[in-house]
Amino acid sequence: MTEEKAFERLLAQEIEVPSWAFGPSGTRFKVFHIPGEARNVWERVEDAALVHQLTGLAPRVALHIPWDRVEDWDRLKAHAEGLGIGIGAINPNLFQEEEYRLGSLAHPDPRVREKALAHVRECISIMETLGSRLLSLWLADGTNYPGQDDFRARRRRLEASLKEVYAWLPEGSRLLLEYKFFEPAFYSTDIPDWGTAYALCLKLGPQAQVLVDLGHHPQGTNIEALVAFLLEEGKLGGFHFNARKYADDDLIVGSINPFELFLIYHELASAEEEGGVAGETVHRVAYMIDQAHVIEPKVEAMILSLLNCQEAYAKALLVDRDALREAQERGDILLAHRILLEAYRKDVGPLLAEVRRAKGVPEDPLKAYREGGYYERAVAQRG
Amino acid sequence: MTEEKAFERLLAQEIEVPSWAFGPSGTRFKVFHIPGEARNVWERVEDAALVHQLTGLAPRVALHIPWDRVEDWDRLKAHAEGLGIGIGAINPNLFQEEEYRLGSLAHPDPRVREKALAHVRECISIMETLGSRLLSLWLADGTNYPGQDDFRARRRRLEASLKEVYAWLPEGSRLLLEYKFFEPAFYSTDIPDWGTAYALCLKLGPQAQVLVDLGHHPQGTNIEALVAFLLEEGKLGGFHFNARKYADDDLIVGSINPFELFLIYHELASAEEEGGVAGETVHRVAYMIDQAHVIEPKVEAMILSLLNCQEAYAKALLVDRDALREAQERGDILLAHRILLEAYRKDVGPLLAEVRRAKGVPEDPLKAYREGGYYERAVAQRG
Amino acid sequence: MTEEKAFERLLAQEIEVPSWAFGPSGTRFKVFHIPGEARNVWERVEDAALVHQLTGLAPRVALHIPWDRVEDWDRLKAHAEGLGIGIGAINPNLFQEEEYRLGSLAHPDPRVREKALAHVRECISIMETLGSRLLSLWLADGTNYPGQDDFRARRRRLEASLKEVYAWLPEGSRLLLEYKFFEPAFYSTDIPDWGTAYALCLKLGPQAQVLVDLGHHPQGTNIEALVAFLLEEGKLGGFHFNARKYADDDLIVGSINPFELFLIYHELASAEEEGGVAGETVHRVAYMIDQAHVIEPKVEAMILSLLNCQEAYAKALLVDRDALREAQERGDILLAHRILLEAYRKDVGPLLAEVRRAKGVPEDPLKAYREGGYYERAVAQRG
Amino acid sequence: MTEEKAFERLLAQEIEVPSWAFGPSGTRFKVFHIPGEARNVWERVEDAALVHQLTGLAPRVALHIPWDRVEDWDRLKAHAEGLGIGIGAINPNLFQEEEYRLGSLAHPDPRVREKALAHVRECISIMETLGSRLLSLWLADGTNYPGQDDFRARRRRLEASLKEVYAWLPEGSRLLLEYKFFEPAFYSTDIPDWGTAYALCLKLGPQAQVLVDLGHHPQGTNIEALVAFLLEEGKLGGFHFNARKYADDDLIVGSINPFELFLIYHELASAEEEGGVAGETVHRVAYMIDQAHVIEPKVEAMILSLLNCQEAYAKALLVDRDALREAQERGDILLAHRILLEAYRKDVGPLLAEVRRAKGVPEDPLKAYREGGYYERAVAQRG
Repeated sequence: MTEEKAFERLLAQEIEVPSWAFGPSGTRFKVFHIPGEARNVWERVEDAALVHQLTGLAPRVALHIPWDRVEDWDRLKAHAEGLGIGIGAINPNLFQEEEYRLGSLAHPDPRVREKALAHVRECISIMETLGSRLLSLWLADGTNYPGQDDFRARRRRLEASLKEVYAWLPEGSRLLLEYKFFEPAFYSTDIPDWGTAYALCLKLGPQAQVLVDLGHHPQGTNIEALVAFLLEEGKLGGFHFNARKYADDDLIVGSINPFELFLIYHELASAEEEGGVAGETVHRVAYMIDQAHVIEPKVEAMILSLLNCQEAYAKALLVDRDALREAQERGDILLAHRILLEAYRKDVGPLLAEVRRAKGVPEDPLKAYREGGYYERAVAQRG
Repeated sequence: MTEEKAFERLLAQEIEVPSWAFGPSGTRFKVFHIPGEARNVWERVEDAALVHQLTGLAPRVALHIPWDRVEDWDRLKAHAEGLGIGIGAINPNLFQEEEYRLGSLAHPDPRVREKALAHVRECISIMETLGSRLLSLWLADGTNYPGQDDFRARRRRLEASLKEVYAWLPEGSRLLLEYKFFEPAFYSTDIPDWGTAYALCLKLGPQAQVLVDLGHHPQGTNIEALVAFLLEEGKLGGFHFNARKYADDDLIVGSINPFELFLIYHELASAEEEGGVAGETVHRVAYMIDQAHVIEPKVEAMILSLLNCQEAYAKALLVDRDALREAQERGDILLAHRILLEAYRKDVGPLLAEVRRAKGVPEDPLKAYREGGYYERAVAQRG
Repeated sequence: MTEEKAFERLLAQEIEVPSWAFGPSGTRFKVFHIPGEARNVWERVEDAALVHQLTGLAPRVALHIPWDRVEDWDRLKAHAEGLGIGIGAINPNLFQEEEYRLGSLAHPDPRVREKALAHVRECISIMETLGSRLLSLWLADGTNYPGQDDFRARRRRLEASLKEVYAWLPEGSRLLLEYKFFEPAFYSTDIPDWGTAYALCLKLGPQAQVLVDLGHHPQGTNIEALVAFLLEEGKLGGFHFNARKYADDDLIVGSINPFELFLIYHELASAEEEGGVAGETVHRVAYMIDQAHVIEPKVEAMILSLLNCQEAYAKALLVDRDALREAQERGDILLAHRILLEAYRKDVGPLLAEVRRAKGVPEDPLKAYREGGYYERAVAQRG
Repeated sequence: MTEEKAFERLLAQEIEVPSWAFGPSGTRFKVFHIPGEARNVWERVEDAALVHQLTGLAPRVALHIPWDRVEDWDRLKAHAEGLGIGIGAINPNLFQEEEYRLGSLAHPDPRVREKALAHVRECISIMETLGSRLLSLWLADGTNYPGQDDFRARRRRLEASLKEVYAWLPEGSRLLLEYKFFEPAFYSTDIPDWGTAYALCLKLGPQAQVLVDLGHHPQGTNIEALVAFLLEEGKLGGFHFNARKYADDDLIVGSINPFELFLIYHELASAEEEGGVAGETVHRVAYMIDQAHVIEPKVEAMILSLLNCQEAYAKALLVDRDALREAQERGDILLAHRILLEAYRKDVGPLLAEVRRAKGVPEDPLKAYREGGYYERAVAQRG
């Protein structure tokens, strides 16, 4: 792709940030309190807006219910819009009530499933109130011990529950179904892999699609290949971007293997260039970040995450895809590989500087953040 | 299940053994020559028959083409039948020709795909000649480097090739589609996981089902859970049993984590007890062993593998499933877990001795093998 | 080993239980409140004593400071002794203060290291007060991002800190140094593997030994082999027993791969039978459980854990080690393997019943627990 | 470091290439014959020399005995020197004889150990003849089944064998001891991890050091951290560079996670800048490539590998280590992380072009190779 066309695409790039990344989060061992972190949903939205203001990349903030529940939704929406951002995906919480000890939508007890369904129902009505089109569903459901529950019975309950949820979806909205290999359930999870999520989405219908979280795979998984598969099938709903070394570490996206991030964006950019299924599909992909900054300053971490995504996308756009296709078809392994490497190595700094100028954001958002005194003010105000 | 009913089931248990496990096999570093190993298909069939004669568990031998190709198929069939066994699944080889360097059914070059298809066509005609009902398809296809080929283009070619194969399937026969996480392709494999195999089988039709090889998963995978999923969907075609510590080590089944083998059989036995989809599905599951004995004596290793499967099945049959269900429904995690543990701990020696008497095989097949002088005779004859 | 000798060994088997397993614990997503769980150190000691009373296996309870800190240590000791148990290892906590965000003994700031050292110093003085001989040291130290800190600088600080700790150790006591592959530090941990712990212990001296937690290894690790290595070198200090499917799941020991637990005990039992280094070493191995029961009843989970260890040890003792050695020396792979399998398959129920009678504990401790009304009383009293 | 100093370091960069990477190699499934690949040691040395001629990075070729054994060693040495390169490490082969089925230096049978020792002895004498200073020792020793052999007995035999080898080492030479997590032994390897290799090297003495192969670790291992540990202890002997996605895939170095390669070089460059142990140690580190190109053209793959190492080293040299240290000491996680990221992102093309001019090699070695007709000539001559 030419730099001109890449420039256009980069101008249009959008990634949702999660409200929960701006408040306290930790490991099972400790929740450290990071100076200046947001104390409530209003401050979380402010931080999200600041991130967008500095990067021009994050025009929406995803909410998590009940953490972000307010009495007056219109006021929250106005608060966000007043700060220049909108509301993105709504994320139900199906893991923090005592009743969910054995699961939520797949729980053996119908009363618990109904409680969970009622919560999802509420989230869908919040979507409608806020004008959101995305229900982002992650389940902590699973088991910790062999024999604890019956896999097939759980599957049937889960499927039945999801069908109820699906029926409630407003027209034009989508259910993004997330999978996770392990944690917090340790022996089995009810949606452990993309295959399970995909199979369930097939049963549900066209408004159900798979959500790929980069940290939810077994070690050694080729994520870019499964992204390509889902694109091809029209079932890639969106991403939860983050990074990990071992498990679901929820680190800054691109901090462990930036080449992998580039390869994922290469699949997306390739699909964008096509007119067929993948091309159409990719335009609906919901790009979202899901991170938990447990020791580092949160706003800065989020800015860095977005910049890493932007850089990866820029490089992916610049892949010489005609030359690549030709090399691939000729079976010229090393030339094909090097065409990707060359794009990955490109210095996209000047191009991104131009994009930022066009967006009216600082050329170096991190420097602007550090020098703008935002952090110090947050510490002073929030303690 | 009562011991009486378990006895009936155990009498009916059948597991195919692979001809290739009786001949030379090794790692990329060395193929050791194990004394007495079979030198040709006739001897491989003899070894398979001996294993069945001593265990009563393996009434069929799977063939691999071209390794087991003969001029006179009728003679091979008669040879097997004369020794008391039949011919099982036919396994095409799509990885040992120079042309397959970049793949077979997903190769970029249509001429290579046609060559591969012609080979599969030949295998299907061998199936018909030999009366086999199973085409067991494993592909070595994949890539070694990012960019080497286009994932989606490969998918399309693979799907088109498989549709051709499917169209050739004789009525009443099945295509068992295997997946593999890695090796011999190291960066990506074209069917890396059960999800991909399942999605392709859905597109192909009811005669296509997924084949689960126990060694073809990333570390930490809960295999029993995905077996349950495939059973529930009517898409579990069969197994390639073996064991591994790290990769696809092809060790004796049950030698690394026998509890996992038991848990897999527990899913199968649970489904057998039902009248619905899973119950019907499970009766068609093709049980097969796929092992490569690289340092140990091959016939003895195969006998041990079969006995480990028999023991795991016996214990799984004896799970008190009514009590289990009740504990699961009550959310009594530890009672449910212990009901499995108790069945796993059961001494099924007396029950299996009875089964062997009823089958007319030695009560201790390994002892009978060691004391019967089979190994010494094989060494003397085959060198 | 004969059953008579095994009986003697089983009578002498002792495993410490951790006080913290009886109180609330959870994942980063949720701490579920399990009915009847202990609310303070007095109740935790009572639960530990109950576990010992029912199993005869757990004569000591390990403490965690500050969770178990009391004003009057003599009263706590008397409380435990009055209930029939003693105090075991003392575990400092170097991860729950805000200052430990970047580490404790390896922290870049000397003031934080001094704080951490002062805490360890206090723990050593508690050891002396309570008559404990074991300081069990686990560090959460590490980094989350490439570049966050200098690996070698951290190593030097850690080594210097540990040397201070070592110098404070009372005569006859030991420092058990734990390693952990990941979590809560996600990019690097300062003691990631047994090799690092071993190298540090070598530098410290004979009172420092390695502590093996079964959940702290990368997937695919052969734990029994590294146990053998540490035994051979006289550096196996002890165990934190538990189980896991993927990460450090802290599940009931033996619940995922009981064969692995048996293989570990086989190494220990083999070393016990020898007169040399390993034989002497093994008699000092501190057997401890470290689990976090996040969804299941805690006392019952602990009883099951101990019984699983007892069963594994019983089977390991019964391995025919003379026959095994002979088969190994002859290179008879399958006979040697089967000798282990045969011991693993043995029904040790009658032997363990005898052991329990001799210890004066119920023959079925789990049944006795369930029928004894302990759980109901705890729920009633503790809510 | 300034670009001027980096330039000097880059001029001095040297990486050994392995003779075996230029001849046929494959997986257990197939050895593909790559057009133009070297047919004998003379051609392998020619290919190595060509790689050096085009890159200026590989002044020595490592040999593998017996694959590279010739009658007239002086002639081979002269052949290499005539082509502008020298002979590097000598690699004994302890896995390709039938006798090594159960191991070599740790084999239960003393006659096999003696055979293996005699082979190593021969390799040491070849070292002396050829003026090599490095014995690079990798063992395929291990077991495939629980119980197959006694871990501690194997350890004792291995240690005794290594002590014999060590005693034979000529003054000034080194034994580089490699470890490997798995393969070709599948249940246990006798030197599975750096900890075992390190412990053995400590026992042997100062001429024994650890060899790190990038593909020989469990998934999720932080290799740069263990490199730092070995540097700090003066026990880092050298590298076998390559890359992998899952197991020991022996792919082109830098092809899967180039950031990890950079992080490893960052540790090396940091240690170089110091005057203490690590600084001294690093100057003796033997940089070697160990790859198996199973589907791609071999000379080109090797050139790309070297260029990837050169690029990673250049970027690592340019890290602003003073700023990094300051950020680390202040606990400024994100600044420290970004200082690494910034160096990683640097366009080192101009600097490397200058280095290549100074070395008198083509500015684009891959282009020069492709356009120089080398491949076509090799195909024509070698078939």
